[in-house]
Amino acid sequence: MDWKPLISGAHSRISPYVVQTPVLDVQSFGLGCPVALKLEQMQHAGSFKARGAFNTLLSEPVPEAGVVAASGGNHGAAVAFAARALGYPAKIFVPEIAGDTKINLIRTTGADLEVVHGAYANALEAAQSWERQSGAMQIHAYDAPATVAGQGTLFAEWEQQGLEADTVLIAVGGGGLISGALGWFQGRRKVVAVEPATSCALKSALLANAPVDVEVSGIAANALGAKRIGNICFELAQDQRTPSVVVPDAAIEAAQHALWRDHRLLVEPAGATALAALMCGAYLPERGEKVAVLLCGGNIAPDPLSDPATQLEAAFA
Amino acid sequence: MDWKPLISGAHSRISPYVVQTPVLDVQSFGLGCPVALKLEQMQHAGSFKARGAFNTLLSEPVPEAGVVAASGGNHGAAVAFAARALGYPAKIFVPEIAGDTKINLIRTTGADLEVVHGAYANALEAAQSWERQSGAMQIHAYDAPATVAGQGTLFAEWEQQGLEADTVLIAVGGGGLISGALGWFQGRRKVVAVEPATSCALKSALLANAPVDVEVSGIAANALGAKRIGNICFELAQDQRTPSVVVPDAAIEAAQHALWRDHRLLVEPAGATALAALMCGAYLPERGEKVAVLLCGGNIAPDPLSDPATQLEAAFA
Repeated sequence: MDWKPLISGAHSRISPYVVQTPVLDVQSFGLGCPVALKLEQMQHAGSFKARGAFNTLLSEPVPEAGVVAASGGNHGAAVAFAARALGYPAKIFVPEIAGDTKINLIRTTGADLEVVHGAYANALEAAQSWERQSGAMQIHAYDAPATVAGQGTLFAEWEQQGLEADTVLIAVGGGGLISGALGWFQGRRKVVAVEPATSCALKSALLANAPVDVEVSGIAANALGAKRIGNICFELAQDQRTPSVVVPDAAIEAAQHALWRDHRLLVEPAGATALAALMCGAYLPERGEKVAVLLCGGNIAPDPLSDPATQLEAAFA
Repeated sequence: MDWKPLISGAHSRISPYVVQTPVLDVQSFGLGCPVALKLEQMQHAGSFKARGAFNTLLSEPVPEAGVVAASGGNHGAAVAFAARALGYPAKIFVPEIAGDTKINLIRTTGADLEVVHGAYANALEAAQSWERQSGAMQIHAYDAPATVAGQGTLFAEWEQQGLEADTVLIAVGGGGLISGALGWFQGRRKVVAVEPATSCALKSALLANAPVDVEVSGIAANALGAKRIGNICFELAQDQRTPSVVVPDAAIEAAQHALWRDHRLLVEPAGATALAALMCGAYLPERGEKVAVLLCGGNIAPDPLSDPATQLEAAFA
């Protein structure tokens, strides 16, 4: 598939609807080398997923029954956000693992939400059943061309903002986001996949030479815990010999803390996973290699302002 | 005083040491108009204060006794950060109102910290006494030319980043930051001061035609609670007929929530005060008026990652 024109088309299509998220060049986190960050957690609904959602809804006629999506939380929130912005009804299925932050986020959009017992795969089954029953349009979380083209706009935008990196580190769950990067860069920059040690569907597929089912768990599971890598991602990553490095949950937590400590960036575990690879040495840049890290999501649990104790400073009233 | 060359000089001087903080253009917060944000809470030590601190330390010879500062917290953290980066000893006096977040932040820099009973004025007295006793260089939090010139670099940087606004809204405590804006813009853009209703030293001074003592309290008091506006700020604001609008604490809290809800920006009350003026209608832009809002600090209490409960997502392990 020739991704470049698909991504360029998506870029023009969704630009009026998404946030052009900022970039930040720093020498921080105890790394000893500069790093270019893109702050995509500031996107609508708190993750890059809004890009794929808007691109899908703006690419095809939407049936009267509206849209349906299954999600660990972020994709569901993005579909719900985009559907509301464009005036379509949305039905979202999430597993319990999505957690209160993401469930509340979806609820506030007014979408019809169903929390499904089990894991993401069970939510996907329920969404497929609803699609057949209602005629609603299914928006896949990662393994659909319109979703991938939408996520790819992030990298087109980053280059317009002056991205200079040799290497871009990207957290991987089902592979929609990194597919967008591989489709856009086409080998012009090195792309490194970063997966939690407790949910590494891409690494497992690359080792097995085919997508395989994996066990998923850990602190980033509701965002990165795909049971099986998407076919689009697997083919692109195999073709381009994309390396995948894995990081332990402790490294992800350490990266979350470093982002807050050094630059008051508060992200969910998935959002800190790519930085974790640099901090813990899972990815070691060559001398002089310019690295960039994508912060992909900020829907942290618990919500830092949901606790009444957090809402009032110790005021000297 | 001709501020423009002072600020330009400071800009070259401190550029290698400070973060070029990102800008973000959005149509959010239920405002119904676009707003340009500058995310200065991502600066070293979590606020714009690092600019004035670095400029002062890089402008004059530093005595062997090092530096001393009194602060509600943010200035102290910035002086401590800059002193460590440049290899000078620092002694910081803060009032209890600074709170655990800011006190811990200063402690982590290795500065010699003293928590003083009473308010900022008491910490300043203690710092002045230490200055006389030790020969250390005092870095004033807001009413000193090198401090103001450092804060002014923020606006030079913002214009380099393409600032298009007609009007810039800035939270005011002692007035160092807004003095930098008034000194840099020199009437080329409208500058609006925003003060908490519970600590409005600038508004009170403008009404009285002279700096006067005010009562200070409320959720932003440790950052914006100056008892008396600085002379530099008073003269610039009186000369330029700078308007000051006041906002209630509830509006500041609402702005904090909106920043998190819409873009995962977590800032302290002072950091949300300028946006509060737009959200609550204390400042009403004309039709078509382009507005910009500075987010000036992110040292929120309690620290969102300090609670062990926040460190672990409800993992489906």
